[in-house]
Order: sequence, then structure tokens, then C-alpha cells
Amino acid sequence: MTVFERYESNVRGYSRTWPVVFDKALNAKQWDVDGNEYIDFFSGAGVLNFGHNNPKLRKAMIDYLEAEGVTHSLDMHSRSKEQFIERFVNTILKPRKMDYKLQFTGPTGTNVVEAALKLARKVTGRRDVVAFTDGFHGMTLGALACTGNQKFHQAAGVDLNNVIRVPFDGYLGEGVDTLEPLRRALEDTSSGINPPAAFILETIQAEGGINLATKEWLQAVAKLAKDYGSLLIVDDIQAAVGRTGYYFSFENLGIEPDLICLAKGIGGYGIPMGVLLIKPELDQWEPGEHTGTFRGQNLSFVAGTAALDYFENDEFLSEVRRKGEFTEERLVKIVEAAKVDIELRGTGMIHGLDMGTGEKAAAVVAKAFEQNLIIPTCGPSGRVVKVMPPLTIEDELLIEGLDRLEKVIISL
Amino acid sequence: MTVFERYESNVRGYSRTWPVVFDKALNAKQWDVDGNEYIDFFSGAGVLNFGHNNPKLRKAMIDYLEAEGVTHSLDMHSRSKEQFIERFVNTILKPRKMDYKLQFTGPTGTNVVEAALKLARKVTGRRDVVAFTDGFHGMTLGALACTGNQKFHQAAGVDLNNVIRVPFDGYLGEGVDTLEPLRRALEDTSSGINPPAAFILETIQAEGGINLATKEWLQAVAKLAKDYGSLLIVDDIQAAVGRTGYYFSFENLGIEPDLICLAKGIGGYGIPMGVLLIKPELDQWEPGEHTGTFRGQNLSFVAGTAALDYFENDEFLSEVRRKGEFTEERLVKIVEAAKVDIELRGTGMIHGLDMGTGEKAAAVVAKAFEQNLIIPTCGPSGRVVKVMPPLTIEDELLIEGLDRLEKVIISL
Amino acid sequence: MTVFERYESNVRGYSRTWPVVFDKALNAKQWDVDGNEYIDFFSGAGVLNFGHNNPKLRKAMIDYLEAEGVTHSLDMHSRSKEQFIERFVNTILKPRKMDYKLQFTGPTGTNVVEAALKLARKVTGRRDVVAFTDGFHGMTLGALACTGNQKFHQAAGVDLNNVIRVPFDGYLGEGVDTLEPLRRALEDTSSGINPPAAFILETIQAEGGINLATKEWLQAVAKLAKDYGSLLIVDDIQAAVGRTGYYFSFENLGIEPDLICLAKGIGGYGIPMGVLLIKPELDQWEPGEHTGTFRGQNLSFVAGTAALDYFENDEFLSEVRRKGEFTEERLVKIVEAAKVDIELRGTGMIHGLDMGTGEKAAAVVAKAFEQNLIIPTCGPSGRVVKVMPPLTIEDELLIEGLDRLEKVIISL
Amino acid sequence: MTVFERYESNVRGYSRTWPVVFDKALNAKQWDVDGNEYIDFFSGAGVLNFGHNNPKLRKAMIDYLEAEGVTHSLDMHSRSKEQFIERFVNTILKPRKMDYKLQFTGPTGTNVVEAALKLARKVTGRRDVVAFTDGFHGMTLGALACTGNQKFHQAAGVDLNNVIRVPFDGYLGEGVDTLEPLRRALEDTSSGINPPAAFILETIQAEGGINLATKEWLQAVAKLAKDYGSLLIVDDIQAAVGRTGYYFSFENLGIEPDLICLAKGIGGYGIPMGVLLIKPELDQWEPGEHTGTFRGQNLSFVAGTAALDYFENDEFLSEVRRKGEFTEERLVKIVEAAKVDIELRGTGMIHGLDMGTGEKAAAVVAKAFEQNLIIPTCGPSGRVVKVMPPLTIEDELLIEGLDRLEKVIISL
Repeated sequence: MTVFERYESNVRGYSRTWPVVFDKALNAKQWDVDGNEYIDFFSGAGVLNFGHNNPKLRKAMIDYLEAEGVTHSLDMHSRSKEQFIERFVNTILKPRKMDYKLQFTGPTGTNVVEAALKLARKVTGRRDVVAFTDGFHGMTLGALACTGNQKFHQAAGVDLNNVIRVPFDGYLGEGVDTLEPLRRALEDTSSGINPPAAFILETIQAEGGINLATKEWLQAVAKLAKDYGSLLIVDDIQAAVGRTGYYFSFENLGIEPDLICLAKGIGGYGIPMGVLLIKPELDQWEPGEHTGTFRGQNLSFVAGTAALDYFENDEFLSEVRRKGEFTEERLVKIVEAAKVDIELRGTGMIHGLDMGTGEKAAAVVAKAFEQNLIIPTCGPSGRVVKVMPPLTIEDELLIEGLDRLEKVIISL
Repeated sequence: MTVFERYESNVRGYSRTWPVVFDKALNAKQWDVDGNEYIDFFSGAGVLNFGHNNPKLRKAMIDYLEAEGVTHSLDMHSRSKEQFIERFVNTILKPRKMDYKLQFTGPTGTNVVEAALKLARKVTGRRDVVAFTDGFHGMTLGALACTGNQKFHQAAGVDLNNVIRVPFDGYLGEGVDTLEPLRRALEDTSSGINPPAAFILETIQAEGGINLATKEWLQAVAKLAKDYGSLLIVDDIQAAVGRTGYYFSFENLGIEPDLICLAKGIGGYGIPMGVLLIKPELDQWEPGEHTGTFRGQNLSFVAGTAALDYFENDEFLSEVRRKGEFTEERLVKIVEAAKVDIELRGTGMIHGLDMGTGEKAAAVVAKAFEQNLIIPTCGPSGRVVKVMPPLTIEDELLIEGLDRLEKVIISL
Repeated sequence: MTVFERYESNVRGYSRTWPVVFDKALNAKQWDVDGNEYIDFFSGAGVLNFGHNNPKLRKAMIDYLEAEGVTHSLDMHSRSKEQFIERFVNTILKPRKMDYKLQFTGPTGTNVVEAALKLARKVTGRRDVVAFTDGFHGMTLGALACTGNQKFHQAAGVDLNNVIRVPFDGYLGEGVDTLEPLRRALEDTSSGINPPAAFILETIQAEGGINLATKEWLQAVAKLAKDYGSLLIVDDIQAAVGRTGYYFSFENLGIEPDLICLAKGIGGYGIPMGVLLIKPELDQWEPGEHTGTFRGQNLSFVAGTAALDYFENDEFLSEVRRKGEFTEERLVKIVEAAKVDIELRGTGMIHGLDMGTGEKAAAVVAKAFEQNLIIPTCGPSGRVVKVMPPLTIEDELLIEGLDRLEKVIISL
Repeated sequence: MTVFERYESNVRGYSRTWPVVFDKALNAKQWDVDGNEYIDFFSGAGVLNFGHNNPKLRKAMIDYLEAEGVTHSLDMHSRSKEQFIERFVNTILKPRKMDYKLQFTGPTGTNVVEAALKLARKVTGRRDVVAFTDGFHGMTLGALACTGNQKFHQAAGVDLNNVIRVPFDGYLGEGVDTLEPLRRALEDTSSGINPPAAFILETIQAEGGINLATKEWLQAVAKLAKDYGSLLIVDDIQAAVGRTGYYFSFENLGIEPDLICLAKGIGGYGIPMGVLLIKPELDQWEPGEHTGTFRGQNLSFVAGTAALDYFENDEFLSEVRRKGEFTEERLVKIVEAAKVDIELRGTGMIHGLDMGTGEKAAAVVAKAFEQNLIIPTCGPSGRVVKVMPPLTIEDELLIEGLDRLEKVIISL
């Protein structure tokens, strides 16, 4: 019996998929304690966009530590926070003509979502929120209510209320306007549906199975929200920070969210950080109305600031797009060559291979691991194999990983 | 207008109390960007038990970073996690004859509490939880429902249900058995009170104003929980990890919690980490039933493991108790010398000076800051000045800080 | 200032529409205290199917009173209850090959609905119930949660949870399968929609605006309920007891409800009574698990039993159908002759003239009252004029009423 | 198998206690279908204050029926309603210097309570309501949430929220101020208790076991409500209309409720009726904001008006008090003579014999029935035998009934 079996809670999950003990990691490679080398097509569920132990970021962190920079400071002002804010505003927001204020919440995605929901309810004085099928927004009760997954719901042990559930784009088949019933219900005072405080959505549902909303649908959601005085919250926790080939997933999609949830990749190095972007006129918080111990993660500010270097110009993002296109081309071929039916979905450096059943997807993951390739599943019943390497992965390694994946899939 | 005023959300709080920009910190000293030096009697709300930038911990972290140890790994096995678990079990649990399993949740206190509540509800099949007046358990909806503070409740924007609110020990005056109405209600099938899934409490309510429960009362809660098949959850997020002069706040108090929530100080260095300790027979989670991106904070494991050095023998804790007694003696004298009525409460290295009103406490904090002393408030309306230096504070600095505090209070 | 203005609550409604004091009534005629005579096209919202002061029913009641029959008996056995049950079973259920048990709840529709919802939740162990847009099920919190009207919802002052709201047949335009999104969501474990305890619906939404569900849609609802182990509750409170030309509104529609809610007309004379019909295998109540003071309304049993005479053979119902067809023909002509757009909906002796706006419908009602015709509105914003005379109305009076209505509508 | 066993729902309760079929009744006597005669010490749970088939009331009803008075009129004005209001105001309210408006809700107690709760929430803009241990307020979800009984709660199948549960007077033993914890919690902004919309209570908890609140406690509740801007709702459904020897149960107790719930006895004859009395300034309903089909029960108005004759002067009430005192004296002796411990509680014509266990109380009821005495139980686990004859019971019959009861109890 290992230490983990004896002493770690039964709730552990990924360690069952990849039952080794990891030790070291660099960019897209990981090594276990026996020295076996793995290619990482997972990126820590979207956290490690800049790879494991990115040297530039690491240097910034070590320098900060050695200089005795203040590490923990709740929501006090710190130089590293100031630098992060300035850099983020100048590098990300201003060039995109976006004006938002930053709220540093507890440093996990679910904390950011909870803050967004509270603020939307406060600003509108309303209680219900529209959330979408297959959406994933977190595990704490407020965010969990917006998450679609039944297994997670049941684990709540209490009712999850104040959510209006609406089919995501494509959920009812191609060409079906999934918003029409809601639109009709909101027009009508006898529908039983109250005007919502907010619509919360991921433009790309990552945990939900790599479901991409179209530009038209997103704009229709945005219009509906506007028409009824509801806020539009984009939960960009997994898809932002360059993953799609753009900094935000919704760039070029013609929507302007009121609140934007960021976490995972924003800290750069894989250490926790969460930010809620708020349109200035909606920043109606009272001082101290939503708190949290780890709001001021200075190491995350330091690494996060260093990571913003990647976005000073379009070079990095255009590389992401190039690699993304290359990945997609390869995946198209793999799908075509496969003997089983697979649906490919994705964009940029986030793709999903919908295997149809959780069993098939699990088989791919298990066989890939035999090939020393770390690749996870997502989607309903885990039936989608998720392809999400670090954005910084070397071409050679990307090709090698795709070769291994091809071998596995062709063999099915 | 500063960067913070222009771009950070209005929700920021502590930065209004201490309106400078902090830059560096070492043990119990902090410096702002202008080089002014401050004594820290706050310890990041209980996170920095081992001081700012503790050199031993820092060395472990830098070594780990330089060795390219895996930093982010969700809930996969990692060598650093294995080492943390082993060390925690051997150094903390076994010597205390405690048998618990560890669940690493999202790395903030509120995430740990949410996991505890879910598990208690799952194990018992019940929905309601007993929480106490002045309790503080977090900001996400499940934990927030257990928190007593009205301002935080109102910010939820939705109802916070499934909580039975009961007066904490001492809430109704000395000698009043605050549990009697609940005990009576649970005996009776017409009371409208259902047997609860759990009782959640802090043995020392820190945010609630440094309210200490007596041993007798805690044992009565534990008995009541046991009698009705409810779990006893101790939220030891602020008071554990040595703060009271014992590793856990409930040592020597004759209770044996079913679930123990740890966060804040457990990561050692001020970087996020959260652990739920679960009695083995209650570890009834299904794999992956409660997840979170930042469950496997390896830097926190590394620093946290290094911090466990302090608990290999009783030396460190006895030093904490010695400093605590010294602090208390000084505070007693300060209170006696004060021209205003002050109630002193506390134990170990956590004390509160109840000034009676929020205004008076705010005045102490403001004047202390003029003396370059960082000291916060807590309690209803913020009327309690909280004295909580790093456990590692040098005697000289502790005395200097107390001198400054005395000067402020005598001057009222 | 009248007694009503001074002493009756401002909540009074219909008395504002028809601001006279009524005194006497017989079949389809009513007289006010000044002796003015009115034709009643309202039937007390469906209560007075057998007209005001129906002589046969009245005789039975007076006889019972004079014989000192027990009047109030909670849920004790009484001879009048026994007779009602036997008669109802033999006259209504057996000829229709229906096997149900009768639960006499508190004697208003909303009490019956609350009992149905409780039982459905108990039997299935589930919490959520599907209810439909524009549905009306009552004013107490459980039934109100299933009602669609926003004004009524807001008056609750608390959240109305555990209801999944789905568009009624036709709500999204002709030919749109309004169940498809729900069907899809129930197939999927990530939709955020849990399998419901029940589907509750009116086959004809009366308060909702005289919306008729098609046979196909009702069967699709029934199938969906069956597929997911949910109960089918038909709230037949307004549409049963002969109103449609059939005893139950769902006869010939190919569905077999699990629970049937009856009230309004079942008492025959306009005195309160409520019955829940329960499929025997679903009658899983514990004794006394749902109570109510006025469960055993013996006068209602007596009048209700006498009213069952009308259903001993098809004569009465075929008369209803004949009058209904006649009414519909006249209404078709009225609509055609009108200068404004009107949509006619209905069946049997329940019809609605959808005037498009509440203002227009209110004008019809006001002008009709000038013609001594009592006719109400229903539907969203009260935009539908409801034509619902007693089933026993004399042909002459029916014609006279329709003539008056025509005059009003043509004049618009 | 009887008709009832085959066709009436298993939920039936009282018919199991008294397994005969009742046929006729007059004042305090009932006869079953076999002609057996029973003395009624139950009064239909407080409905039949004026006895079964009270001749004066019956005459008024028959006259009304024969005159073709309008029977069902929703909330339209009717002459019988006008007469009832005038008579009620002049006979009951004005002599007591009470100024209230009347809302006729659906004609059952639970409907009245639901209306009261809605109005209190609307007027205050608050959500939570204080309700007391052992309180009984009805079976529909809003009223049920205020009811204390666990069996009834569990039957809800959903959460019952927005209620703050507080121990009733005496619940914690004599002399304990059960309001102190709430008072303290309301003073404090960190108690987790929000200022309530209302306090709802029965001055005498009838279903709860004949628990009488003291004048001092009621005044303390009233003060607390006033201090925090909460409404005081007295649910006088079972205890008003003369039961205590006063028209309202709270007369002479020094409180002035904001809302008063009446039902049961108000209709006089045992036919349904419900009234909410509202202080004029609180009558903030919008027209039609709370509706109900059977709001205008004209037969109840007629019988109810005739019943008000009893209150034109103090003669009837003084008779009630005399009989009540006589009853109490006898019960004191019975309790003293009993071989088992019995606690007697009560006032006027409502008394309870607390037998200590449900089994003992059930034995009393069963043996009494063998003596042709109908007497029910109430209270937690049904451990209290409730003595509640019609107020109009003849002395001889009252004595006979008490003799039978004595015989039963002495024999235990």
C-alpha cells in the first residue's frame, strides 16, 4: 500500500489515470521518480500554457524570493501587484481597447466565479443566473450551481438554486437556435422565468467536451443579456491566456463581456491566481465585501508579470496559431485514418476527439500512457480526449506526441 | 490617482487601512517602497506563522525550483506531495495518535470548508449543518452560509440555507449553556429542527473577535454531535499550525473532530494550500467527486514540508507558549493602564483587545500604523484589535511592537 | 366609502371589474342588490358548471341539513363521503376503466396541488418538478412555484425552487417540439437538469389564456415522464367535470395520468371541495402524513354526489358538446366580423378570445358589463376574454349572451 | 374491504382512530350509521364551536339557499359578504377598539397563513420569519415551513427555508427566557440571523400540545418584533372565536397583532372560511396579488354572520368561561386521582392532558371511544389528550363526557 493509498483521500482522481509518481518537469516533458519521460498534452488542465518550469518565469520568481520581496499580503498594496496591474493593463487591455478593473479574489477559478456571481446579483438586484448545459464553473456551491455535471451536483448534498439552465450552442443539433425558448420566455410575464442577473458561459466549454460556440450565437446571447439588463460573464478560466491563439477566447467574436473570469494560466507558472475583470461602471463592491486570504499572491504576480512578456507583440500568439493549425491538420488526418467514428472539435491549441463513449476515450488515454503520452479526457461521461499541450511546446515534441496519439488511435 | 485606485476593484480593503505599497519583508518586518520599516503583528491573517520569507523554507523552494521539480500537477502523485504526506503523518498525526486521511482541495480555506460540508452531507445523508454566531468559514456560498457576518451574507445576493444557527460559547453571557435549546430541540420531533449533518466550529473564533470556547463546551458540542449521528468539523484554518502553542487548536481540549479544515499556515511560506483531514471511515468520496485545479500545489508541499521541521520536537511550540505568555502579561498590563474599557481575550500567540466599538478599534489601528506597527481588527463591527505576530518573531521585536501598541492605547 | 372599500383588503380584484353588489343567482343569471339582471359567462372561474343554485343539488343539501347529517368531520368516515366515493367510482371511474384512489385534501385547488407535489416527491425520492409556461396551479408556495405568472411569483417574497420550467405546447410557435430541449437534457448527465419527480400540466391552460395542448404533445409528455420514471400530474381543476364535453379534459387524448387534481366543479354547488386521484400503486402516503381541517366537506359530498347524476349517461355531456359547438360557431363568426384581430381558442364550453393586449380585453369586459354580461379575462396581461358559461345554461340565454358579446366586439 | 379501504387514500387518519361511519350529529352528539350515539369532545379540531348543525345557523343557511342567494362569487361583492363584514366589524372589532381590514383568502387555515406570510414579506422587504417549536400553521409549503412537526416536514420532499426557529414559551423549562438568544442575535451583525419579516405564533399551541404562552412572554415577543421592524402574526385559527372564553385568544394579554389569521370556527357551521385581519396601514396588497377560487364563501358568510349573534354581548362568552372553569376543576380532580403522571394544561374550553407518551394518550383515546366518547390527541408524538367540546355543549353532556373520561383515566 502506497503512502497515497493509505493516507490520501479516496477522492483523488488523475492519479488513478496515471499511476506513477511525478518528480520533475520541463516545458512539455515530465519525468516520474523512476526517470521515465513523458510528453505532456494536458498542461495541468490549462494552467501550464508556458510549460513546466518556464525558465524566464522561474528566474523572476527566484529573484523575487532572493530579494525578500513580500510574498503574502492579502489585499494590501504590493510592488509586485502594482507591476502586474500596470503590465496587464498596458500589454493586454489597452491594445485591445478594453477598460476593466481587476479584482484579485481567492486564487482558484471557483472563487473568481463566486465573486462574479455575487457582483452580478448585487448590481442588478436579481437572483437567477442563466447557465448552460455542459458548462463547468467550479466546485463551491455558487459556482457548482452553474456547472452542469450531475455527479458534481449530487455531491453538493443540498439544492443548487437560482440558476436557469439553457442549452449551449449546438446542444440541440446544428442550426437550432437554442436561445429561442428563453427569448420567448423573457418576453412573457407568465413564463415562470425571471429576468436573470447574468448569463455565465465559456466560449469554449473545455471540461464540457471542447464545445465551441459560434460568433453568431455568442452575439445573440450578448444581445439577449443586454435587452434584459443582465450582465454577460465570460468564464475564460481555461481558454484565455493565449490558448486559442488569442489572449482572450472571445477576441474577434464580437462580444464585450461585463465580467471576465480568469485563473489557471494567468499566474504563468502553475501557482494559484484568480482575477475578475470588471467593467468600471459595474465595480459596485463595497470595500471588503468579498474577501479571501490568498488574494494577493505576490509570487503569482511576479511570474504572471513575466509571462506577459509573451504578449508584448503578436509573435507568440502567431506561433500558437501556427502550431494550432498544424495540430488540427494532423488530428484531421488521424480521425480520417481511424477505424472508429471520432468527432474532432477545437481551435488554437485546444482540441477534443469525441470518441462517442467514455470507455473508448478511457482506452485511448490508457494506451497513450503506455506510450508515455499524458493526455486526459473531458466531456459528458468523459468521452472526449482532450489535446492541450503547453503553448510553448517544441515542434519536435508536438509531432512526437501526435505520432504517439495517432498510433494509439489507429490501433483501436 | 494611483494604479490601484484606477485599476483595482473598489472591493480592496486592507490597503485602505495601510495605504502604502509594500515591497520587502523578513520575518516580522515589512518595508514599503519608500524604505519605511514596519513591525508585523498581523502575520497575513494567520498565514505567516513562520514569518515572511523564512530562510529555511525559501531555500527548500528555490532548491525545488532549480531542480525543475514538478510545480503543478492537479491531483496526480508527485514526489513533493508524497514527502509532505509522509512528514505530516509522522511529525503531526502519529505522535498525537491521530488517524486521518488527507484531502488536498483547492488551496484556500473556503474550498476546504466546502469539501468538508459536502462530505458531511454525503456521509450522513442529511442537509442541515449547525454553525455558530460570529463564525467565519469563507466567502463561497456553501462556506458563506456557515459564516455569521451579515455584510457578507447580504453580498451573496441569494438565500443561504441549510444552516442551523446556534450561539457560540459565551455568546449569551458567562455560564449560560448555549447548547441547551438545540439539545432540547433535537430530542423533540416537533421542534422544526432536523438532526444535522455536522457541527462546524472554530475552537477560537479569530475573525469573529478572538472568542475562545471552553473545553467543557467543546466536549458538550462533540457529545451532542455524537448523540445525533452528526459529524464534528473543526475549522482550524486560522488557529492551527502552532498558533496556540499547540499544533492544533483543539489539543488538550478533549475532542476528536471527524473532519479538520486546514489552510493558511499549512503551506508555511504564505503560498496557498488547503487540506481536509478526514477520519478514515468517513472518507467515502467517490474518485473525482470533488475536484479543483490547484489541488496539488507542489511549492506549498515543499515549503510546508520544510515548515514541519518546527514540529519535530516540542522546542518550537514551547517557545511559542513562552512568547504567548509574555505577550499576554504585557497585554494585561496595557489593558489595566488604559483609560478606556478593554476586554482582553486570547491564548498562545493570538490575542484580541475588545475595544467595545469599531471606531475605537479603528483608531488604535490607525495610530499604531503611525508608529509603523501593522495590527488589524476583527470581530463584530471590527471592534477587536487582533494581536497576532509571526510565531518566529524575535523577542526584541515583539517587545518593540508591544511598546508601540501600549503607547497608542495609553494615549486613547 | 363602501363597507368594502373601508374594510375589505385592497387585494380584492373581481369586485373592481364588476363594481356592484350581487345578491341572488339562478343557473346562468345573477342579480345585484338593485335588482339588475346579468348573464353569467364566467361560472365562478369554472366552479359553477351546473349553474347557480342548481335546484336538484340544493334540494339534496337542504335535505341533508334538515336531517342533521354530519357536516364537518375532518377525515373521519361519514355516510355522505361513502356515498360520494361509491358514486364517483361507479359513475365516473369504472365506465372509463380508470382505477384511482381518492384523497380528500383541504378543499381548494392549491391544497390538492400541494398534496400531489408532495406525493410525487415522496414516491420518486426526487425534488424537481417540470411545470409549463403560462401554467396556473395555485397561490400557496408549493403550487405557486409551478405557476408561471410573474406577478404572483413576486408576491411570494421568497425563492420558488425545485421547478424546471418548460414551454407549453404551441408556446414557441406552431410545429415546434417544445419538449426537445428537455428530452435532450434528460439524456445527458451534464445538462444540469435532474430527472424530475413529476410533470404537472393542465391539458387546457385556463388561467393561462385558454391554451390547448395537442394529443400528440400530451402523449409525448407522458412518454417522457414514463421514460425517466417521473409521475404525470394532470391539474384538471378548471377543465374537468364536464367543461370540455367530457368528464375529464384528457379523455380521448391517450394519456393516463398518475395523479389527477380536481377541485372547483367537483363540489357541484360552488362550495369548496378538493380531491386528488391517485393510482393505487402510488398511494404511498403514511396515515396522517398530509392533513387539513376541511378535508371532509359533507355538504360538498352531498351536492357533489347529486351532481354526478349528470354523468350517469352521455345525455348531459352530449348537450355540453352541442352547446359548445354552437358557441364556437358563433364565436368564429364574431371574430370574423370584428374589425380587430382576435384569435379564438377553445373546446367544449371553454373558449378564449385573444385580443392581443390586456387593454383591449379589458375594454370588452367593461363594455360587456354595460350590457349586463359578466365575462372575465385570463392569459398573460389579461389579454384573453374567457367565454365559460354554466354547462346548464339555457339555449336562449346562451344566445342572448353571445349576442351581447358580439355587439361589444363588433363595436370595437 | 370497505369502500374507504378500497378507494380512499391511505393518508386517512382520524378514521383509523374512530373506525365507524358517522351519519348524523347535533350539537355535542354524533351518531354512526348503526345508530350508536357519541359525545363529541373534539369539535372538529376547533371548527364546531357552536356545535354540530346549530339550528340558528342552519336556519340562516337554508333560508339563504331557498332565497337563491348567490353562493359562489370569488371575490366579487355580495350582500352576504357585506353583511358579514359589517357585523364582524360592529360586533367584534369595534367593541374591542380594533381596527383591521379583512382579506378573505382561500377558505382553509393554511391559505390564510400563506397570505399572511406573503404580506409580511412584501411589507418589510425581508425574507425570514420567526416560527416557534411545536407550532402548527398548515400543510402547504409556506405554512409548513413554519410548522415544527418533523413528520410533516419530511413529507414536503423539498427544503423548507426562510424560517428562524425559536423555542416557544416554556419549551426550555419554567422561567427560562426563550427569546434571549434571538434578542442577542438580532443586536449583533455577526450572528447569522437576519431581522425577520415577521414573528408567527399561536398564543395557545393547540396541535402542538396545548401549550399556553404567558402574557409576559407574548409581550416580549411583541416588543422584539417592534424593535426590529418585524410584523407580529397571531395564528388564532384554532383558539379564537370564543374558545378561550374570549373572542380572540390574545385578548387581555396586552398584545396587538399586525396580522391575525382566522379560519376553522369563523364560518360557524363547519363549512370552510378563512380571513386574514390586517392593520389598515399594512394592507399594501396590489389588487389581485393573492387570489383563490373559494375566497367568497357566501354560505360561510351567512352562517358566520348568524354565529356572530353569540358575541353581541358577554352572555355567551361568560357561559364559556363558566363551563371552562368547571371543566378545569373536574380535570384537576381527574389528574389527581389518576395513578399515572399527567400534566394538565389549558384555559377556557381548551385543555390538554399530557400523558407523557403517545402510547398512553392513544390508550386513553381508544378506551374513551369504547365509552362512546370522541376525544383526540395532539402534541409531540401525540402524547396529549385534547379536551375541546363544542362551546355550546349542554352541562349535562359535558358532565357525562367528563365522567367517561375520568373512568378511562382512573382505569389506567
